[in-house]
Amino acid sequence: MWRAFTNPKLIAQWWGRGNKLVIERMEVERGGHWRFIEHSPNGVHGFEGRYREVTPPERLALTFEWDGMPGHVAVNTMTLEDLGDGRTKVVTTSLFHTTEERDGMLRSGMEQGVNQSYAALDALLAKPA
Amino acid sequence: MWRAFTNPKLIAQWWGRGNKLVIERMEVERGGHWRFIEHSPNGVHGFEGRYREVTPPERLALTFEWDGMPGHVAVNTMTLEDLGDGRTKVVTTSLFHTTEERDGMLRSGMEQGVNQSYAALDALLAKPA
Repeated sequence: MWRAFTNPKLIAQWWGRGNKLVIERMEVERGGHWRFIEHSPNGVHGFEGRYREVTPPERLALTFEWDGMPGHVAVNTMTLEDLGDGRTKVVTTSLFHTTEERDGMLRSGMEQGVNQSYAALDALLAKPA
Repeated sequence: MWRAFTNPKLIAQWWGRGNKLVIERMEVERGGHWRFIEHSPNGVHGFEGRYREVTPPERLALTFEWDGMPGHVAVNTMTLEDLGDGRTKVVTTSLFHTTEERDGMLRSGMEQGVNQSYAALDALLAKPA
């Protein structure tokens, strides 16, 4: 699971929800930058940020910014917990500067997008290694 | 005053508080990036962010991140108000994700740094054009 979040070749297979994802930059270390370009049927979308905490295999924190709303930055923290039996519990929190930004993100269709990403991640994990 | 905040040659003369400032990137437009390197007697410090709002001549909003605390992002908003007689009132607000980040920035010597920058800005403005 840690590799699915931190290996460019693996993240390219699920983060884009089935859309082509170009990894322009992905320096997985504290202070490193990331920048992904998603080629979706309704356009090309850039996303970027910086790694704030990289603690394998259980904790990853990074900033997240969509080109469409530049300067509006969320901090996403992912915690991975090994449940045994090959299962992992993923808890993600998103911290926004304001409640308006949080609500705007929710209204943007974030839930559907996240669900599509996780479905693609499930499919990737189901593949033979 | 607007130019002092948005022209690389001018900002290099005051933002670094008398220290050498290298402007690596400064795209003054909504969504543009900036990255400055300050060469101070106690080390080299990188700062970066992205322009969120560029409304000349009165309002500039940008994100601000110091390499020493990557992923901790403040939103700085500067409002310039013409008071006449060649005077301008500058109001800056900094929005942090958490009170801990705000207090950490205050404890870092921010007040002294800002005062040094504004003293250098005053000196620049006092120069014959």
